[in-house]
Amino acid sequence: MGSSRNGVVGDRTAAVDKEVDFANYFCTYSFLYHQKEMLSDRVRMDAYFNAIFENKHHFQGKAVLDVGTGSGILAIWSAQAGARKVYAVEATKMSDHARALVKSNNLQGVVEVIEGSIEDVTLPEKVDVIISEWMGYFLLRESMFDSVICARDRWLKPTGVMYPSHARMWMAPIRTGLGDHKMNDFDLAMDDWSYFVDQTKTHYGVDMSVLTKPYSEEQRKYYLQTSMWNNLHPHQVIGTAAIVKDIDCLTASVSDILKVRSKFSHSITMENAKLCGFGGWFDVHFRGRTEDPVQKEVELTTAPSIDYTTHWGQQVFLLPPPIRVSQGDDLSVSFLMIRSKENHRLMEVELGCEIQQHSGKLLAPFKNKFYIE
Amino acid sequence: MGSSRNGVVGDRTAAVDKEVDFANYFCTYSFLYHQKEMLSDRVRMDAYFNAIFENKHHFQGKAVLDVGTGSGILAIWSAQAGARKVYAVEATKMSDHARALVKSNNLQGVVEVIEGSIEDVTLPEKVDVIISEWMGYFLLRESMFDSVICARDRWLKPTGVMYPSHARMWMAPIRTGLGDHKMNDFDLAMDDWSYFVDQTKTHYGVDMSVLTKPYSEEQRKYYLQTSMWNNLHPHQVIGTAAIVKDIDCLTASVSDILKVRSKFSHSITMENAKLCGFGGWFDVHFRGRTEDPVQKEVELTTAPSIDYTTHWGQQVFLLPPPIRVSQGDDLSVSFLMIRSKENHRLMEVELGCEIQQHSGKLLAPFKNKFYIE
Repeated sequence: MGSSRNGVVGDRTAAVDKEVDFANYFCTYSFLYHQKEMLSDRVRMDAYFNAIFENKHHFQGKAVLDVGTGSGILAIWSAQAGARKVYAVEATKMSDHARALVKSNNLQGVVEVIEGSIEDVTLPEKVDVIISEWMGYFLLRESMFDSVICARDRWLKPTGVMYPSHARMWMAPIRTGLGDHKMNDFDLAMDDWSYFVDQTKTHYGVDMSVLTKPYSEEQRKYYLQTSMWNNLHPHQVIGTAAIVKDIDCLTASVSDILKVRSKFSHSITMENAKLCGFGGWFDVHFRGRTEDPVQKEVELTTAPSIDYTTHWGQQVFLLPPPIRVSQGDDLSVSFLMIRSKENHRLMEVELGCEIQQHSGKLLAPFKNKFYIE
Repeated sequence: MGSSRNGVVGDRTAAVDKEVDFANYFCTYSFLYHQKEMLSDRVRMDAYFNAIFENKHHFQGKAVLDVGTGSGILAIWSAQAGARKVYAVEATKMSDHARALVKSNNLQGVVEVIEGSIEDVTLPEKVDVIISEWMGYFLLRESMFDSVICARDRWLKPTGVMYPSHARMWMAPIRTGLGDHKMNDFDLAMDDWSYFVDQTKTHYGVDMSVLTKPYSEEQRKYYLQTSMWNNLHPHQVIGTAAIVKDIDCLTASVSDILKVRSKFSHSITMENAKLCGFGGWFDVHFRGRTEDPVQKEVELTTAPSIDYTTHWGQQVFLLPPPIRVSQGDDLSVSFLMIRSKENHRLMEVELGCEIQQHSGKLLAPFKNKFYIE
C-alpha cells in the first residue's frame, strides 16, 4: 500500500508521507522513556496481562500478530501464554529494543520482531489473534486504529479474534476550575498583547493592531478551544455519562471512524452545579468473538476514578463561562469529530448542546468547536 | 533548486523534504505567539531598528530583500527608512499576517510580501541589501543561514550589503547549579528505572534489565548531554571568553559552516572556582562592506549580561561533576560542531578540553559529546 496510511480515498483522507508522519507522530514512540511511561501504567498493564493469561486458549499453539509492539510486551506475554508464533511489528527503532527484550527473556524461538509499518510488511501466514494497544486520548487521537484495521483485513484468519474486541468513546458533563484558569490566562495574554501593541507603536513606529484579531483567535484556540489532558475526580462528573461511539474491532472500517457523528444526552445528577465543560474518555473490552469467546471477559476503562487512573487521563472540553444547572436538567448533545486536514492523527470536534431545565424551560442552544492536538 | 535546503552535496547534506522540514521546523514560526516573543525582545528589536535607521543611506531609494520576514517588521522598517522596493519572503502562512501588517501601515506600495522558500522564489530584480534575522541558539542552530547564503548568491548585486554583515560564535567556562540539578535528575531517573525493572519482573514476569544500558544512555543524553537554554549572569563566567567562529556574511559558504572546527583557550579569572561547563552565545555586527560601510556600526550581542538579556539566552554545555580550577589555570579547547544526521537544523558538538594548572601541571584531557536540540 506504499506510504498510504488510510485505505479510503475521499474526504479528509490522503496518502501521508512517511517521513512527515515520523516527524509529526512516530518519533515519540522511539524513546524508551515514553515506553516506560506506558509500561508503568498499572491499569493498562493489568488489563492486557489478565486478558491474555485468563484466556490462554486463544493463544496456546496459535499465531499472533502484535500491531505496534513498542517494547514488545504484548508479544512477550502472548508467547508466555503459549503462542506457537508471534509477529511483533514496530515502525520505529524501538523494534531493536523489543528484539533484545525478547531474546533476554528467551522467547526468540517464538517471537519475531519485524521493523516496519504494518501497512507494508509481509507475514508468512495469517494469524489467529491480533493484539494491539492502539488507543490514544479519547480513544481515536493518533488514528492508530486505522493500522489495526489494515492489519486485520490483511492478516487475520476468518476465524480470528481481536484483542481488544470492542471499544467505546464516552462523554459526561463536568465541573472544573480549569475553565476559570484558562479564561484568566487568555485575558492576561490579551492584556499583554495590548501593551505590546502600544509599546511597538511608541518605540518602533509600527502599528500592530491589525494583528489583534488573528492573535486573539490564536490565543483563544490555544487556551479555550484545545482539549486538555486531565485526571478528573468522579465528583467532578455532574451528570450521567453517555456513549459517543461503539466500535466492534472485528468489523469496523476506517470510514466508520473518519467522521464520528453522534447524538446523546446527559441528565444532570448534581444539585445546583456549574456546567464547566465535558469530559471525554474511552473503554475497551476483551470479549473474543461470538463463535469463540473469551473465558474471562476483561475491561480496560479510563473513566474518572479515584483508585484507577491511567496515563490517558480524560480529555476536557471547556465551555467558559460556567452555566448553572440543576439536578434533573437534560443536556441534548450533538457531536461531530473529524480529522484535522493538516495532520490526520489530530482531531477537530464540534459540540452542540441544548439544555432543557427540569422545569421544562429550554435554554438557547450553543455550538462550540474544539481541537484535539 | 527544488526542495534542496543545502547547496552542497556530500557529508551531512542531502535534499530535505519540504513537508518534513515544515513538521520539524517551520511550523513554530507560523504562530503569532512566537513572532510576538521575538518582537518583544528589546535588544533584538533595538539592534535592527538602529542598524536600519542610523544607516538610511543603505536603504533610501534601494531594493531590499528580507529573508524570512515573519511578521514583516524588518521589511516595514526598511520601507520606512526610504527603500524604493522591499521583497519580504516568508515560507509559512505568517506571510498573510505580514501582508496585512504592511497594508495597515500604508506600505503596500513599497513592500511586496512573497510566500515561499527563498530557495524557490523568483524576484524581478537583484537587490542592494539583504536583511535577515536568521540567528538561532548559539548562532547556527536552525541552519537558517544556509537560506541567507542562497539568497545572497542568487539575488544580491555585486555591490550589495548584508544586514548583519558579520557574525561570531563565542564560548566561555562557567559555573552553574544546573549540573548538580541535572545529575540529580538523572540519578532519580535511574533509581526509578531500577524500581520499574523490579516491579515488572515481580508483577508481569518480564525481565527488562537488558534495556537498562540503552535507557541509561537515553537519559544521560537527555539530562546531561543536551545543551540547555539559560540566562547566564556575568558572574557565572569564570574565565576569558573565546571566539569559536568568525563569519563574514558577504563571503561565507555553506561548506564553511557545515563543520565548525576550532581550537581556542580560556584563562580562568576566578580564584577557587568550580568549572561546571561551558556557555555558548553569539554576536552579530552591522558594518556594511569595506567599499560601502555603515555610518553607524551596530552590535547585537547575546553575551551574558545583567541588563541586556535576549530570548536567545545562552546555551549551556554541562561537565558534571564540577572541576576545581584556580585563577591562572588555562583551558585548551578543541571544538567540533556538525549537523545531526536526522535533522540538519540540529547540531552535534564534540568538546575536548585540557586543563593546565597555573603551577604548570597538566590534568588528564577529556572529551564530551553534546546535542543541540
